[in-house]
Amino acid sequence: MSINALTADVREQVDAFLKQQLARHSINETLRRAMEHGVLLGGKRVRPYLLMTIAEICRGDKQAALTAAGAIELIHAYSLIHDDLPAMDNDELRRGQPTCHIAFDEATAILAGDSLQTLAFELLSEWPLGGLKAERQLSMVNALARASGSAGMCAGQAIDLQATGQQVSEHELEHMHRHKTGALIEAAATIGVLCGEEEALKWQPHFEEFATHLGLAFQVQDDILDVIGNTELLGKPQGSDTAADKSTYVQLLGVEGAQKYLSSLHEKALLSLADIPYNTAKLEQFSDVLLKRDH
Amino acid sequence: MSINALTADVREQVDAFLKQQLARHSINETLRRAMEHGVLLGGKRVRPYLLMTIAEICRGDKQAALTAAGAIELIHAYSLIHDDLPAMDNDELRRGQPTCHIAFDEATAILAGDSLQTLAFELLSEWPLGGLKAERQLSMVNALARASGSAGMCAGQAIDLQATGQQVSEHELEHMHRHKTGALIEAAATIGVLCGEEEALKWQPHFEEFATHLGLAFQVQDDILDVIGNTELLGKPQGSDTAADKSTYVQLLGVEGAQKYLSSLHEKALLSLADIPYNTAKLEQFSDVLLKRDH
Repeated sequence: MSINALTADVREQVDAFLKQQLARHSINETLRRAMEHGVLLGGKRVRPYLLMTIAEICRGDKQAALTAAGAIELIHAYSLIHDDLPAMDNDELRRGQPTCHIAFDEATAILAGDSLQTLAFELLSEWPLGGLKAERQLSMVNALARASGSAGMCAGQAIDLQATGQQVSEHELEHMHRHKTGALIEAAATIGVLCGEEEALKWQPHFEEFATHLGLAFQVQDDILDVIGNTELLGKPQGSDTAADKSTYVQLLGVEGAQKYLSSLHEKALLSLADIPYNTAKLEQFSDVLLKRDH
Repeated sequence: MSINALTADVREQVDAFLKQQLARHSINETLRRAMEHGVLLGGKRVRPYLLMTIAEICRGDKQAALTAAGAIELIHAYSLIHDDLPAMDNDELRRGQPTCHIAFDEATAILAGDSLQTLAFELLSEWPLGGLKAERQLSMVNALARASGSAGMCAGQAIDLQATGQQVSEHELEHMHRHKTGALIEAAATIGVLCGEEEALKWQPHFEEFATHLGLAFQVQDDILDVIGNTELLGKPQGSDTAADKSTYVQLLGVEGAQKYLSSLHEKALLSLADIPYNTAKLEQFSDVLLKRDH
């Protein structure tokens, strides 16, 4: 099974929800179209899938999970728009489509990113949200903010900018990825559990540990695909990380070394699920499919 | 009394609070310094002052008011950093200092703005917050998001971008300002009341109306000062709006017409306070000082 087939149902739900919310919360047509471009043009929906699957496993509130899944995807989408800007990675292609600042212009892309971030917090703070207690909902807002800010994703992006063109150690590379992409993937687990029943909260660290290993493995896999993958399937030029002078796991460990490291992270991820008294088969399947993907 | 003297106490409290929070929530030194540059290098602190004064009038929770004042200033600061970017207004000077992308670089300025926005929501969602109920706190988060997103401040900025170089009507100019700056000033009133006692909620629309008129008057005053003010006091070149090909109230109404309009907005603002059964003298003084400032 491909990752796109596995997440198809979640993708449809989340995309329909976000399309509706974008229309409801925008008053400027160009800005709305740029936001839509950033968030609705494809993507695997890894974070929403992880969040909604964990919420389901934890017998969580469905409406809360869908809203939270939309919110976390909005944060991810905003970060991609801003990362692609000329002043950042200067990418013209993302998921086989022109990036936001190419399809629109730079100013609109900056604003679209800003607005997608805001919308994430707007949606997640609308009360009531399903049957959740307000305290629980505040924890979700806070977890999303912590993961995406200056001690999370944005810090990771800053570290990445500062490291570009430099030789970094494996430790430094992991530090960067844990923030740049790992923090938000971990937050998907945190928030998924927060949608769940009271009993589930006890297992939050286990779900988070699963997500941490999965997130890092996902990144290692990305580095491998950047070298052995092909442009058409990836939606971006193969070898683009090397061209951009970014450090990668393949560069540090070689293709074979990176593949070994990926396997060990995959095992650790599965091990994190071992003690959880809920049925986690869907997460095992997800990590299998995600980490064996070819694009 | 000058506006800076009036808001000095609030400015000190908010700046000390934000400096502490920036240190607590950052892990990357360059990013933290860029964020500090954006938020701690001066400014009149109009939004925090309005929020904290209304909270005080409504017998509000002091700690909640300080946190919310910090959060709203973070949103304002992020918007200024992004507005100043080369792709937007391309300003090199703000409050007499180099703008963030000049002092650092463009990529860091984009990230600093992104992180300041996130930090606003992070601080405001930390629970417990003073003695506030979680529901009340969620309303504050939501009000801040609504005011700053794609139906508020960001929409205003998009409208402004699209209007640059075009002749707009007075109605269109007001529509733009109501979103670009008005929404956040109004949110300062909304959130100030939300810090207050239950009884105060009833008067929320009155406080908001005051803020709406005040916000627009503040903008008209800005346009007048851009023509008759002087560069040293303004911290930016006098006439910079005209140079940037932006529509202004002075352009539409003439200096005298704009001054008349300013007076009528000032009167409407004061009238909005008339029925409120709390002592609003501090707000009357604030609008007096703010709208009679010379920079």
